[in-house]
Amino acid sequence: MSEHTRPHLVWKEHSRTPVFTTPVFTAVKSRRRGPHDQEADFYLLEVPDWVNVVPLVRDPQGRECFLMVWQYRHGIGDLCLEFPGGVIDRGEQPEEAAARELREETGYRAGTLVLLGRIRPNPAFLDNWTYTFLATDLTLEGAQRLDEHEHIDPVLIPVEEVERSMGDPPLQHALMVVALHWYRRWKEERRG
Amino acid sequence: MSEHTRPHLVWKEHSRTPVFTTPVFTAVKSRRRGPHDQEADFYLLEVPDWVNVVPLVRDPQGRECFLMVWQYRHGIGDLCLEFPGGVIDRGEQPEEAAARELREETGYRAGTLVLLGRIRPNPAFLDNWTYTFLATDLTLEGAQRLDEHEHIDPVLIPVEEVERSMGDPPLQHALMVVALHWYRRWKEERRG
Repeated sequence: MSEHTRPHLVWKEHSRTPVFTTPVFTAVKSRRRGPHDQEADFYLLEVPDWVNVVPLVRDPQGRECFLMVWQYRHGIGDLCLEFPGGVIDRGEQPEEAAARELREETGYRAGTLVLLGRIRPNPAFLDNWTYTFLATDLTLEGAQRLDEHEHIDPVLIPVEEVERSMGDPPLQHALMVVALHWYRRWKEERRG
Repeated sequence: MSEHTRPHLVWKEHSRTPVFTTPVFTAVKSRRRGPHDQEADFYLLEVPDWVNVVPLVRDPQGRECFLMVWQYRHGIGDLCLEFPGGVIDRGEQPEEAAARELREETGYRAGTLVLLGRIRPNPAFLDNWTYTFLATDLTLEGAQRLDEHEHIDPVLIPVEEVERSMGDPPLQHALMVVALHWYRRWKEERRG
């Protein structure tokens, strides 16, 4: 798995021109030279890094649960059940963003945050990372602090229910499948 | 996990205006009314559906392997090791796209294709699905048939190596983690 150098596949960027900017992404045209000296333009999105938080808690019946959030997702025009998370602000560390997003979306503060892993959401045309943190030792600190157009319902869902249903709607967000992947890997390593 | 109706979270679209079009996506501005009758604009991307193929084969030593592809990914400017796949063409069925992409990128034809699952790559601002198919009974049919700017190296990687390393570079593409998730679920269900 160590073959990182395949120069016959690599392109080099010459220039990068912003073509459209929105609050959530900047579309750019990248002019590149390929391995056979051909030139071409590629359209890419510059997007901030994102963070997901996997908050592990026990419900009143003592079952191991994830603290998750229901929210409306504008891309698909439907509700999703997700782990808390969001955009990492400029100048913010991933762990700070994880703590902030958890607090804003659920009202909870994490006693401990552990980086489980990071992934490329889509290397084909996005340039960013998504970081996933495990959050434990949760304490309810107060009400949610949502952005102007955010409406979010926090809920507790048993871990085994999430593991069984992950990937099916309403657990249909690819980056949540990745968050669960990192959680399972962490759990296996702790066991081993 | 059956709570699908939370009307206090739902927005309704009024109008949709294309703001920028490229060969790989169209950015649109969507004007929407929220659950408290507020109005706001959201920037979204219309993108075609995508397909991934998990090709299962034995290598000359008899080990169970995935047929995977090395390629340069322009979004991150680096090489990735991925399952074969790509964009579903207009008018094409997901299964047809899976067969075509496998053939084009690797030269192999699948005797059997089974839909393992589908996912939303990013419900926040993308409107599409990614379908994942298992491909078995592979036969080498000929040379690759690549697009003008595609350069791809097919390789066989043992399944256990992929399972151990998935998520770490060069296996760092979120949708490949999802493809492996569907493959594992299929394997567990077959066992059970």
